Amino acid sequence: MSDAMTQYVTPQEQQIVSANHAVTKIDVTPVAFADPPLLNSVGVHEPFALRAIVVVHTASGYYGLGETYGDEAHVARLRRAAEELIGVDPFNLNLVSRLVSRSLLEDDGQGGHGTGGMVTTTSLDDRVLSAFNVACLDIQGKILGLPVSTLLGGAVRAQVDFSGYLFYKWASHPGHGEDKWGVALDPSGIVEQARKMVDEYGFKALKLKGGVFPPEQEAAAIEALHQEFPDIPLRLDPNGVWSIPTAIQIGHRLESSLEYLEDPCLSIADNAAVRSEISLPLATNMCVVSFDDLPPALDAKAVDIVLSDHHFWGGLSRSSLLAGIAKTFGLSLSMHSNSHLGISFAAMIHLASATENIDYACDTHWPWKLVEDDVIVPGVLEIRDGSVKVPTAPGLGVELDTQALERMHQQYLDCGLQQRNDTGYMQSIDPTFELKTPRW
Amino acid sequence: MSDAMTQYVTPQEQQIVSANHAVTKIDVTPVAFADPPLLNSVGVHEPFALRAIVVVHTASGYYGLGETYGDEAHVARLRRAAEELIGVDPFNLNLVSRLVSRSLLEDDGQGGHGTGGMVTTTSLDDRVLSAFNVACLDIQGKILGLPVSTLLGGAVRAQVDFSGYLFYKWASHPGHGEDKWGVALDPSGIVEQARKMVDEYGFKALKLKGGVFPPEQEAAAIEALHQEFPDIPLRLDPNGVWSIPTAIQIGHRLESSLEYLEDPCLSIADNAAVRSEISLPLATNMCVVSFDDLPPALDAKAVDIVLSDHHFWGGLSRSSLLAGIAKTFGLSLSMHSNSHLGISFAAMIHLASATENIDYACDTHWPWKLVEDDVIVPGVLEIRDGSVKVPTAPGLGVELDTQALERMHQQYLDCGLQQRNDTGYMQSIDPTFELKTPRW
Repeated sequence: MSDAMTQYVTPQEQQIVSANHAVTKIDVTPVAFADPPLLNSVGVHEPFALRAIVVVHTASGYYGLGETYGDEAHVARLRRAAEELIGVDPFNLNLVSRLVSRSLLEDDGQGGHGTGGMVTTTSLDDRVLSAFNVACLDIQGKILGLPVSTLLGGAVRAQVDFSGYLFYKWASHPGHGEDKWGVALDPSGIVEQARKMVDEYGFKALKLKGGVFPPEQEAAAIEALHQEFPDIPLRLDPNGVWSIPTAIQIGHRLESSLEYLEDPCLSIADNAAVRSEISLPLATNMCVVSFDDLPPALDAKAVDIVLSDHHFWGGLSRSSLLAGIAKTFGLSLSMHSNSHLGISFAAMIHLASATENIDYACDTHWPWKLVEDDVIVPGVLEIRDGSVKVPTAPGLGVELDTQALERMHQQYLDCGLQQRNDTGYMQSIDPTFELKTPRW
Repeated sequence: MSDAMTQYVTPQEQQIVSANHAVTKIDVTPVAFADPPLLNSVGVHEPFALRAIVVVHTASGYYGLGETYGDEAHVARLRRAAEELIGVDPFNLNLVSRLVSRSLLEDDGQGGHGTGGMVTTTSLDDRVLSAFNVACLDIQGKILGLPVSTLLGGAVRAQVDFSGYLFYKWASHPGHGEDKWGVALDPSGIVEQARKMVDEYGFKALKLKGGVFPPEQEAAAIEALHQEFPDIPLRLDPNGVWSIPTAIQIGHRLESSLEYLEDPCLSIADNAAVRSEISLPLATNMCVVSFDDLPPALDAKAVDIVLSDHHFWGGLSRSSLLAGIAKTFGLSLSMHSNSHLGISFAAMIHLASATENIDYACDTHWPWKLVEDDVIVPGVLEIRDGSVKVPTAPGLGVELDTQALERMHQQYLDCGLQQRNDTGYMQSIDPTFELKTPRW
């Protein structure tokens, strides 16, 4: 194409339609919220989970909300991108994406993955773009009087189903009092936790985070859940720490009790080797985590289900693209979760409501968060009978509570954490703990 | 997912945000416009080209425009789909798509392809959806005060480059006077036509519709163009009527004079066989014409460039999805054209302006249409220096001329054509003409 054709439309040229709404200020605020000692393959959740809250302000007085990882390196990138976005038209999402990428041109890409070392190959550009894309859509919706679901093509369902997310856990963080969930370190503890989850939230699907205990023990936990909840679809996620033979063996064992098995191994090739030997569908949020992973994963027939996550797939617009790709290439789709607050929850709900091919109840960490620990005005998002009603107010449909934001930022400063480090925290408690992949 | 989750949001539920804009009426009007005797592999363009104009009206008094094929079977489908869409929220594009598909459930899919038999494997649902998707986006833009390019993610260029589309042609339709372009049946005629096109419109790329004369003659025409316009990228489109050996032979001959070769053969497998033997990029609008064609075409490495066409890829929203798929899987992208009026031209321009990876100047039949033959108020769309400025007014940025629509509908009634039939028309003039693939 000629130079003229590849030249981007400047904010000046866009002023014809949206002159009054240029971005004037972006606040990036790291916050911390209490998190239980949830165990996983790389260690254990620290007493506080970190997030960054992005608030984009326009000349017209609107603000839009985004939420993303709170790791120090990620926050620094968000702030560099934010500088680049001053003056941009929040209706030009393509330009926002371009400018975010420009802010990252010199970036070495080290650190700030936000997932405690479990997923480190996500796209840097998409990871940083995400919260700005969400915030711009929130602004658009508020200005236009449309919910974000409509901006994503229109809600195809009025409520979104979520699964109950079970974790092995200690009774408490060392030195803290016991939390309301109690201990869960064996099958009966997991069943007890599941019973609480189902009773309180009405979940109609359950997922167990595995990769913590020897696979035989985790398989026994799934079997115990299946016996206790015979009508509830179950998933197990060992977070990529099984060997191929282990995954095949446990996969066979659980064929009649699991809905799908998630990331038994870490790589596309290893999961493909497992998938060719078992009849269970495989899901992933570890080996297909960016658009670049899609062609090789499809070639290898590695997975059946992609667990999308707008935090690393570039926001809501690009997650819609992922959904279209999944449909075109015969992949099923559901949604992955990390510890999150209400802004992310609202974004996940709008996306799922406007995505025709969400084929399974989505994951969420929502129940693990204290109700009072959030930056949004409470009352909009509630899990009942395992689903959440899609907000119908303009934008994301949630409002920032500025005092809560301040309080949670202070909590961030006070807790002293600057990046998620499940491994380091575990090793501070159990010096013998080692990272190992595959572990079994 | 549970039943609750796959249930579509009803217009009643959507009324919270867009109660006033429900669709109250949809007019589907076939029109005809004068078309020169352009030659192609299946025959010759008839004296009139047919289109259907779709006007969607809302309870709030807005209207949105769509344009598509005018073949009788297609018009009947549009009208059935239109009935299904009464009462729908034009902001819920997913629901519009769902309802269009529902209207086609009992359809046998025969006829109405609109491309004169050249492309018959497009998706029925996407072909019928297209004009309604465009019209709903036009309505949204008018209501919101945003150009369609913004609704598609934001313009990344202020003008869109087009290529000059050269055709072998007779001096006139039998029994009619000579048109302004004159005869072009050999290399010097094509060069003369190209000179007129370049002088009048400033095109910086040229495409020759081939498949009409023996390949050696068409190769000679390309070589003559290359000599006359050494700096202008050239494409040749034999519309799938070459054999594999012919395509390889001519492909080698034109490696230094073509930018790309378009559909030398008809099938994915045959084009893949050609592509593996020549260094020229291959483009297609014949063997990859629906989302279902993408996985096999990628597996076969059949083509380098997909020529998108919102008329058969489901409208603008799904053409954006195609663009995202192309980028993800390493395909280049440009745009295909059939004979069209101003509504389609505006839609093509908005789409191209908001599509980052439009890698080549787009095709258009625009110069072949009489200026006075259109249904829109003139003056907005003009090709200068080979490009068109993207309209910045709300919606598509073009307005319906209701008197012109009436006049062109009368022209449709008067001309007596009810479906495009290049082959029948050619045979009425040359009874020895036969369809043949491959022809050479």
